[in-house]
Amino acid sequence: MPDPIRPTDDDARALARDLAAGARLGALGVLDPAGGHPAVSRVAVGWAGGPVLLISSLSHHTRALRADPRASLLVGEPGPRGDPLNQPRLTLFCAAGFVARDSDDHGTLREMWLARHPKAKIYIDFADFAFVRLAVRSASLNGGFGKAYELTPADLGL
Amino acid sequence: MPDPIRPTDDDARALARDLAAGARLGALGVLDPAGGHPAVSRVAVGWAGGPVLLISSLSHHTRALRADPRASLLVGEPGPRGDPLNQPRLTLFCAAGFVARDSDDHGTLREMWLARHPKAKIYIDFADFAFVRLAVRSASLNGGFGKAYELTPADLGL
Repeated sequence: MPDPIRPTDDDARALARDLAAGARLGALGVLDPAGGHPAVSRVAVGWAGGPVLLISSLSHHTRALRADPRASLLVGEPGPRGDPLNQPRLTLFCAAGFVARDSDDHGTLREMWLARHPKAKIYIDFADFAFVRLAVRSASLNGGFGKAYELTPADLGL
Repeated sequence: MPDPIRPTDDDARALARDLAAGARLGALGVLDPAGGHPAVSRVAVGWAGGPVLLISSLSHHTRALRADPRASLLVGEPGPRGDPLNQPRLTLFCAAGFVARDSDDHGTLREMWLARHPKAKIYIDFADFAFVRLAVRSASLNGGFGKAYELTPADLGL
């Protein structure tokens, strides 16, 4: 079986950084608290020195991350043309950390979030919403057919 | 804390069936064989009496599903307009079953797949590709803000 992983180069690093820092949307994978089954859901994504989520305590993924912080985030939305499997995407392997609402960091993230997601102003201050910072442990870049890379946080500038 | 889950009705069932049976693309969540960390990747999706994937043995998700068949599949691509968090999507909780290449089922799925994904003709017969049937155990429908439902296989016509 050939090794499908290519050596990481600067083009791969630049593509991964663009995908990570530019994402507005992603698919979040968590572990179900009852038994550890994987669960994937759509989330809005921000960036502030690393990936950020804004999630509701009413949601399944929030309960899951409170019980086990291990998370995976797929970013890189397919464009309207071409084969989606030949378009670049990035999987981040992360540990989730909840940001306290009365922290300075909450204020910083709130500003960043509203700049990227203006429509979130409707619910951003609801009591059940919290910011989550994702600490990236490693990443898999798929740049299209035959273009797979395994990246470190340093490759992403983290 | 209010219960955010609505009682399942026929509109929810119809929406979920459309999302599941019509999906061409999804985000697949699996468990990393080394330690059980969640991992999410983009996959092409088909339908033949239930969800079907075509995946390569060179990929991480294939190795993961060979080790632990538990999978989660998010379907329902956001459209170009409006808030993606207010557009419907469906999470399927599944057990993956690999289809033998010399089975009749492989031939059936091959035909279905090429009708839905004509460009796959380039690689569908490569030795490392296999079909996977996902047996749905339960599903979560998010029809947009405040429209969450928990569904059974029967709700999806399965």
